Amino acid sequence: MDRIIECVPNFSEGRDLDKIEKIVDSFRGKEGVKLLDYTSDKDHNRSVVTVIGEPEPLRDAMVEAIGKAVELIDMTKHEGQHPRMGCVDVIPFIPIRGVTVEDADRIAKETAAAASEKFGQPFFLYEKSASAPHRENLAKVRQGQFEGMAEKMKDQEMWKPDFGPDTIHPTGGVTAIGARMPLIAYNINLDTPQVEIAQKIADRIRHLKGGFRYCKAMGVMLEDRGIAQVSMNLTDYTKTAVYTVFETVRMEARRYGVNVLGSEVVGLIPVQAMVDCAEYYLGIENFDPGQVLETRL
Amino acid sequence: MDRIIECVPNFSEGRDLDKIEKIVDSFRGKEGVKLLDYTSDKDHNRSVVTVIGEPEPLRDAMVEAIGKAVELIDMTKHEGQHPRMGCVDVIPFIPIRGVTVEDADRIAKETAAAASEKFGQPFFLYEKSASAPHRENLAKVRQGQFEGMAEKMKDQEMWKPDFGPDTIHPTGGVTAIGARMPLIAYNINLDTPQVEIAQKIADRIRHLKGGFRYCKAMGVMLEDRGIAQVSMNLTDYTKTAVYTVFETVRMEARRYGVNVLGSEVVGLIPVQAMVDCAEYYLGIENFDPGQVLETRL
Repeated sequence: MDRIIECVPNFSEGRDLDKIEKIVDSFRGKEGVKLLDYTSDKDHNRSVVTVIGEPEPLRDAMVEAIGKAVELIDMTKHEGQHPRMGCVDVIPFIPIRGVTVEDADRIAKETAAAASEKFGQPFFLYEKSASAPHRENLAKVRQGQFEGMAEKMKDQEMWKPDFGPDTIHPTGGVTAIGARMPLIAYNINLDTPQVEIAQKIADRIRHLKGGFRYCKAMGVMLEDRGIAQVSMNLTDYTKTAVYTVFETVRMEARRYGVNVLGSEVVGLIPVQAMVDCAEYYLGIENFDPGQVLETRL
Repeated sequence: MDRIIECVPNFSEGRDLDKIEKIVDSFRGKEGVKLLDYTSDKDHNRSVVTVIGEPEPLRDAMVEAIGKAVELIDMTKHEGQHPRMGCVDVIPFIPIRGVTVEDADRIAKETAAAASEKFGQPFFLYEKSASAPHRENLAKVRQGQFEGMAEKMKDQEMWKPDFGPDTIHPTGGVTAIGARMPLIAYNINLDTPQVEIAQKIADRIRHLKGGFRYCKAMGVMLEDRGIAQVSMNLTDYTKTAVYTVFETVRMEARRYGVNVLGSEVVGLIPVQAMVDCAEYYLGIENFDPGQVLETRL
C-alpha cells in the first residue's frame, strides 16, 4: 500500500454485537483494506471503527458498511448518551501516506455520492470538505440530533444535505462525511495538584482563547496521581506541532514555578508528527522526509 | 511487506556499466524485493547497491547477484582505491521492520551456504554473524586484500572461510557476509572554526577513546562554512541513541564556550531512531511503538 487513507466511521449501535459484526465485516477480507480496530460502548450505544486502505478500495468498503448500517440500525429506536444524528453518524477520511487532504476529500465525496444513490441516505460534508463555513464543525452540524434533524432541514438554505434526499432517511437519519487531518490526542503532566494552573495554561494555548489555531485544550485533574494535566487535541500537526505546544506549556508553567513531568500520546500518532519533533530538537539541517527509511518502503 | 530486511552489497566493479547493470538486474522485477538505489564510483571501482525485501525473496535475489558477480568480475585484473578482497566484497543484512538481527543473521548464513555451493565462492561471516571475535571487524577480515588473501588463509585456524572452499576463488576472491544493525551517519555542527575542538569532543564520545559503545566519531572542518563538525557513525541506535550523542556533544562543547549550530543526517535513518528522539525530548510516558500509525500499516 503506497497510498493510504485512514477512515474512522462512528456507527450508532454499541449493544447488539451481531449487528456490529455484520457492519464491521464490510472491512474484512478486502484487498487493499485493513481493519485496525473497533470498539463498542454500551452507554454511548456507539461503535468506532478504525480502518486504513488504498483510496478506492477503502471507499468501496465504506459504501458497503453504510448500506449495512442503513439496513440494520433504526434511529427511531436509538438511545444512548453520545450526541448522534444518523445510523452512521460521522465518517472522517484522513490522509496518512502518499495522499493529500484533497485526495481524502475526493474519496469522501465519492463515498457520499455512491451511498446516497444506493441507499437513500443524506450526507452533510463537514470539516475540510464542508460546502460552507457553518458546516465545518461537527457539533454545529449535529445540533438537534436525529430527533430534531427533520425540522432543522426545513431551513434548506442553511441545512439542505450536500448529497441525497432533502430530508432525513426515516430510520437512518443523516451522516456527516468529510476529510480531516489526523487528530493527535496529547496530554502534558504538571508537577502540581492545582488543576487551576493546568486550566490557565490550557487557556493560553487553545485556539478559542487566543492560542494556537489547531489546538483544543483543557485542564484536568488526574486523581490517581494527584497531579494536574493539560489535555489536548491537536487537529493539524503540520501547522500546530507537538513540540510547539510542549515547549509553550513548559514556558507558561514556569510562571507558576511548576515543572513539566512528562507527556502522553493517547491512541495513534502519525509518524511524521514524531519525526518533526526529532528534527526540531536535534536541529537537523536540510532534512528530507525521504531520508526516513520506512517512508521508502 | 510486513517483514523487511535491507541489504547493501558492495560489488568490485564501478566502471563497466554493462556489467553493473547485469548484476543489479538481479534485484529488479522480483516479488518481495525492491531496489532502492545503486551508485558506482570510478576511482574506487566499486558499486554500492541498496535493496530491501522480505527475508527469503531478498536472499534468493542476493544469491543470483553473487552468481553474476563471480561470473563477470575478475579480481586478478581489478584496480581501485578502495580496499577490497572479493568480486562481491561485503554483504551486510540489516533488520528494518518486523524482523530481528537474528533473522538477518539466518538470512546471511543461508545466502552464503547457497552461493558457496552454487558458485564456489568462499565467505567469511562478519559483524553480528562472526564465528569468532577477530572476525567481527570488516577491516581486519579484509586486511591483505585480494592479493594477500590466499597467503592469509594458509593460517586455517585463524582464517578458514565459514562457507565454501578453504582458499580464495581464483577470480572471485572471498566475500564478507553477515548481519548488522542499521548504521546512521550523523554529524553535529559547531559554532567555531577550530577543528581541534571538534576533534577533542569526538574523542570524548567515540568508543575507542572511552566514549559510547556504538559511536565512531572524528572532528572535521567544513571549509565552505568555516565551521568545525563532529562527524559520526552510530552503529546501533537502540543502544547508543541519536539524542544521547547530541546532548553529550552539546555538554562537552560548553567546556569551550562553543554552541551547537545544528546537525545533519546523511543518507537514510530508521524511523525508530527518530521516534526514540521525539519520545525522549517530549518526555512521553508509556509510549508503545504500536501507537505510531505507520508501524501498523
